Amino acid sequence: MYELGVVYRNIRRADRAAADGLGRLGSATVHEAMGRVGLLKPYMRPIQSGVSVSGTAVTVLLHPGDNWMMHVAAEQIQEGDVVVAAITAECTDGYFGDLLATSFKARGARALIIDAGVRDVRTLNEMGFPVWSKAISSKGTIKATLGSVNIPVVCAGALVTPGDVIVADDDGVVNVPAAMAEKTLEAAIAREALEGAKREQLAAGVLGLDMYKMREPLAKAGLRYIDQA
Amino acid sequence: MYELGVVYRNIRRADRAAADGLGRLGSATVHEAMGRVGLLKPYMRPIQSGVSVSGTAVTVLLHPGDNWMMHVAAEQIQEGDVVVAAITAECTDGYFGDLLATSFKARGARALIIDAGVRDVRTLNEMGFPVWSKAISSKGTIKATLGSVNIPVVCAGALVTPGDVIVADDDGVVNVPAAMAEKTLEAAIAREALEGAKREQLAAGVLGLDMYKMREPLAKAGLRYIDQA
Amino acid sequence: MYELGVVYRNIRRADRAAADGLGRLGSATVHEAMGRVGLLKPYMRPIQSGVSVSGTAVTVLLHPGDNWMMHVAAEQIQEGDVVVAAITAECTDGYFGDLLATSFKARGARALIIDAGVRDVRTLNEMGFPVWSKAISSKGTIKATLGSVNIPVVCAGALVTPGDVIVADDDGVVNVPAAMAEKTLEAAIAREALEGAKREQLAAGVLGLDMYKMREPLAKAGLRYIDQA
Amino acid sequence: MYELGVVYRNIRRADRAAADGLGRLGSATVHEAMGRVGLLKPYMRPIQSGVSVSGTAVTVLLHPGDNWMMHVAAEQIQEGDVVVAAITAECTDGYFGDLLATSFKARGARALIIDAGVRDVRTLNEMGFPVWSKAISSKGTIKATLGSVNIPVVCAGALVTPGDVIVADDDGVVNVPAAMAEKTLEAAIAREALEGAKREQLAAGVLGLDMYKMREPLAKAGLRYIDQA
Amino acid sequence: MYELGVVYRNIRRADRAAADGLGRLGSATVHEAMGRVGLLKPYMRPIQSGVSVSGTAVTVLLHPGDNWMMHVAAEQIQEGDVVVAAITAECTDGYFGDLLATSFKARGARALIIDAGVRDVRTLNEMGFPVWSKAISSKGTIKATLGSVNIPVVCAGALVTPGDVIVADDDGVVNVPAAMAEKTLEAAIAREALEGAKREQLAAGVLGLDMYKMREPLAKAGLRYIDQA
Amino acid sequence: MYELGVVYRNIRRADRAAADGLGRLGSATVHEAMGRVGLLKPYMRPIQSGVSVSGTAVTVLLHPGDNWMMHVAAEQIQEGDVVVAAITAECTDGYFGDLLATSFKARGARALIIDAGVRDVRTLNEMGFPVWSKAISSKGTIKATLGSVNIPVVCAGALVTPGDVIVADDDGVVNVPAAMAEKTLEAAIAREALEGAKREQLAAGVLGLDMYKMREPLAKAGLRYIDQA
Repeated sequence: MYELGVVYRNIRRADRAAADGLGRLGSATVHEAMGRVGLLKPYMRPIQSGVSVSGTAVTVLLHPGDNWMMHVAAEQIQEGDVVVAAITAECTDGYFGDLLATSFKARGARALIIDAGVRDVRTLNEMGFPVWSKAISSKGTIKATLGSVNIPVVCAGALVTPGDVIVADDDGVVNVPAAMAEKTLEAAIAREALEGAKREQLAAGVLGLDMYKMREPLAKAGLRYIDQA
Repeated sequence: MYELGVVYRNIRRADRAAADGLGRLGSATVHEAMGRVGLLKPYMRPIQSGVSVSGTAVTVLLHPGDNWMMHVAAEQIQEGDVVVAAITAECTDGYFGDLLATSFKARGARALIIDAGVRDVRTLNEMGFPVWSKAISSKGTIKATLGSVNIPVVCAGALVTPGDVIVADDDGVVNVPAAMAEKTLEAAIAREALEGAKREQLAAGVLGLDMYKMREPLAKAGLRYIDQA
Repeated sequence: MYELGVVYRNIRRADRAAADGLGRLGSATVHEAMGRVGLLKPYMRPIQSGVSVSGTAVTVLLHPGDNWMMHVAAEQIQEGDVVVAAITAECTDGYFGDLLATSFKARGARALIIDAGVRDVRTLNEMGFPVWSKAISSKGTIKATLGSVNIPVVCAGALVTPGDVIVADDDGVVNVPAAMAEKTLEAAIAREALEGAKREQLAAGVLGLDMYKMREPLAKAGLRYIDQA
Repeated sequence: MYELGVVYRNIRRADRAAADGLGRLGSATVHEAMGRVGLLKPYMRPIQSGVSVSGTAVTVLLHPGDNWMMHVAAEQIQEGDVVVAAITAECTDGYFGDLLATSFKARGARALIIDAGVRDVRTLNEMGFPVWSKAISSKGTIKATLGSVNIPVVCAGALVTPGDVIVADDDGVVNVPAAMAEKTLEAAIAREALEGAKREQLAAGVLGLDMYKMREPLAKAGLRYIDQA
Repeated sequence: MYELGVVYRNIRRADRAAADGLGRLGSATVHEAMGRVGLLKPYMRPIQSGVSVSGTAVTVLLHPGDNWMMHVAAEQIQEGDVVVAAITAECTDGYFGDLLATSFKARGARALIIDAGVRDVRTLNEMGFPVWSKAISSKGTIKATLGSVNIPVVCAGALVTPGDVIVADDDGVVNVPAAMAEKTLEAAIAREALEGAKREQLAAGVLGLDMYKMREPLAKAGLRYIDQA
Repeated sequence: MYELGVVYRNIRRADRAAADGLGRLGSATVHEAMGRVGLLKPYMRPIQSGVSVSGTAVTVLLHPGDNWMMHVAAEQIQEGDVVVAAITAECTDGYFGDLLATSFKARGARALIIDAGVRDVRTLNEMGFPVWSKAISSKGTIKATLGSVNIPVVCAGALVTPGDVIVADDDGVVNVPAAMAEKTLEAAIAREALEGAKREQLAAGVLGLDMYKMREPLAKAGLRYIDQA
């Protein structure tokens, strides 16, 4: 299903303001606003903690144990991009370390999302280059086989089209199609706005049962309360 | 990334003859002919053994623990289709049993490919309805939430577009985009033709080293032979 | 949470007729009749295929790599029992082989359900002694530490109380509390009866959409049909 | 094995002083004092680091992808409780985020133990609400199906009865039945007391071989020392 | 730890009669006779069922996704060998199919043990060429990088030295060092001889408790029997 | 394959200066310098963060759930050693806690590498005793069965011979055979030296494509650039 040996240039990126706005709302809120689709599998974990990013996707398709196309992808990075790397088969090798991170950062990349392993994680953290990955591994890779850059890829179970918005934080990674970025941002802002008031009530001890008016539907569904003797 | 609550009708299916031809060649040969892309993850295993099928994909997107859309998908099945079921999150529940299989079979489906669990597997085998799945589980599902039918889905890590060709056998499941079906069939037939002659030579004791003329490149790469004292 | 070093004798077993009846209905139907609770995790797989059993649980709690209590459990087996073995920590060792199977069978056991490994699986199959397990492993075990027999145990995520009914087949393993065995049997029979008529309709090409009258609730939930241009 | 649609009120909680004392000793010491039973599976990991808690269990049984009963559970929380959430099937969805945490905290809960996923982990850490979970996931849940509150549940392989003591820290989560809380506390204190003296000796370079008088039993078991030439 | 780019010829193989004799006893008995060491991890499963083999190890070290050295290994096979393939990193690709099997069989190989994937499993079964593997996958491999043949390798967690005896059946795969083959065979035969008499007693209903005289040590360890009221 | 019940004394350790030098270069650089072999599987993770160690291996072979030999190993530790613990079967129990760490540290050990679980991780971090392990678990172990000390072991898929150099940091754990320590150090230093210059160029925005002169080989391999319309 993948076109191999191709690099698409001048991809259409999602609206920058929308991409940035989505990042401020976080992956959980954005995922809700999307109707609960677009989430990469939860085995994708950050190598750092407390970092939130968003950006437009530059995609790269790699073969197991081969990071040649990472260098090809570097040239396509623009300020504000997030590189999304998919592999044609399961692999935990360390495709990415401090040299590539230096290059990606110099080109303007905000983060790497990779369905495989990375290495030099201590240096990556010191450099402040955030990564979400499936594994951490010292094992390096060869440079022998062509993949592609900026084709639609499946990364950790989610379809990512070049130019889509990626939102990543401690809770995981969400993909927002470029065409839905602005609408999703609006929905997410609306959702966020509602949460402030709710949080205050809950902090004051009001129960969700009352705040969300759940007692009646629960009773209708047959919920019974029993006092233990 | 998914459109929810939609059923696409009258999808364009891959050429029937190409779909059938690909099935005769098997998933490994087809995967090679595709350039080694399009394979669903190897955790997808058949519930039967020794069965090969191919057909055109009718896709269905389901929510965890909810098989409502399976019934919606049934109506879209035509003779020669293979149903490909994706889930919006990881789930091993038994979405599919003998009743749905009876319905799918009556509508002309050749098989089910599902990135989740199935049940009644003994009956499914007796009925001769083949399934490739991630799990087997007695656990049933509810019917509460809308997914979609015949949208592009990610199933076991592979993107499947409605109408694509699915080839499945004991080695796994491969997806061939409709537009590539005929070209892939030609390449696979060519590949298969070459294998017959090779098999005869190897059976006669000729080494791949000689048949494929590997001795020179191996020596160039630095391979050394050492006789154990 | 476990009492160690204890063997309970003369446990109260579920009604034999109910236990036998539940076995004829199969794990999926029984699981539905239970309200979808009581299922052991789906990693529990049969070492044989096409076999269904049911019986009353004799439980045994074992330590990792130690099968001493299996011999203590053997004495508590009565005709029609199924032995359910839980381990105090994750282990894949082969706790059970053809000698223990010979003993269990001679005592009247119908099957073993074990959240660990077994060995001699070829002989077990030839003897016709069915097993559902987490693993198959040649690795034997020592006999050094006390566990317990006929205490409530957690096996593959499910609580099993001695005397409960166990139903196991190709779809998995379900636990039915002794006190619920007869009521569950009735519910399962009723469910099964309904399925025959449905199967006939579906085989004749009637859609579940119509048979279950789903079109209206689907439309209400917002399902849209789109004809592909 | 589970009773569905029920909320037990006024459960009997373990002795508060015992619950608090056990927390000071930590999960490893308490697990030893219990005779090495009662441990939740080690896939349960804290979302924070360096935090120890103990408290009395309020249990909740949830369905996959459905957190409705979390709100029902909130009402049953008393000062000093720890909420223990079990799911009827494997699930990694994010059942719990900052709003529920605000509510639970306001009601007096000390922590959440959940055999599934949570989200908003950065905020949870900032709030100081500790969680031990199987996963972290942005994916939210629906509110559609009844589970139960304060029934005995199996959480990560351990049986937890409402009112039991939960001890959780960086090493994992241990369940102490309410009836055993005081006896376990005594045993744990005795054990801890012995460790101080041992630690000093070991720090001074005394070998465990000598301190525990292991040389003789090792020799009896047949241990041989060989000097490498 | 591995020497790369080397092929050792004329390795010393274990005694043929011992190798054949061990195969007749099976992996579980041999593993016991070895003192419970030498077992490959239980994720290694046969692609066929009911087949037992033994033979002398020809080892091959491969890189992820690269089966070039398989052809180099073929030349080193002698009648009665079992090929043991290790990979330098985790990989599930299909390294081996019907062409290589034809070649291996023609050279006299009895089986393949591979810590990765294979394909064409239906044909392999029809040909009667047995395989124990970690995975089944349609995905093919490239031929680009040098590994080694007949160096000591770690396969599925066990160290295999060229010429060692491999015993494989439905219970798993055991490695017996060449130097221990004859002694292990004797121990295994002795063990097997004892089992016949035990089996008869157990089949007659004698309990292991009595046959193995376990009642006294169990009582000493503190086992208590309680009659349920 | 393992010799049981043996302790080798006076093992030959790798050159201390080489061992220390390798630690300064880190596991990724050392793994490259080794030709990409010698890496323990990436499931081995540090319980601390930001710590790098290297040292000479003292090995210990343990049985599942039994840490008796840890005390035997302690006596064999010399200043600058790293203890490498392998288990004869899969196990996640907590074999090692603050008492053993106190003893190991007092004897001069720099770290523990264990293919199983550890506990008291908070205290271990406070003590500054680094550990790389497969799991963290409160579950303790018994002291009943003989393993061995200072025999070659397979730990997390890698063969470790006593006296080898172990290099461990946030990226993982690498084993360097004693005989290769000095040559590997030279190769690693050379590699490291080259990286400084590269990093500067990449930081200045030079592409790897140009720096590594990849454009020509990529074009030869058939890479095509397409401008998106």
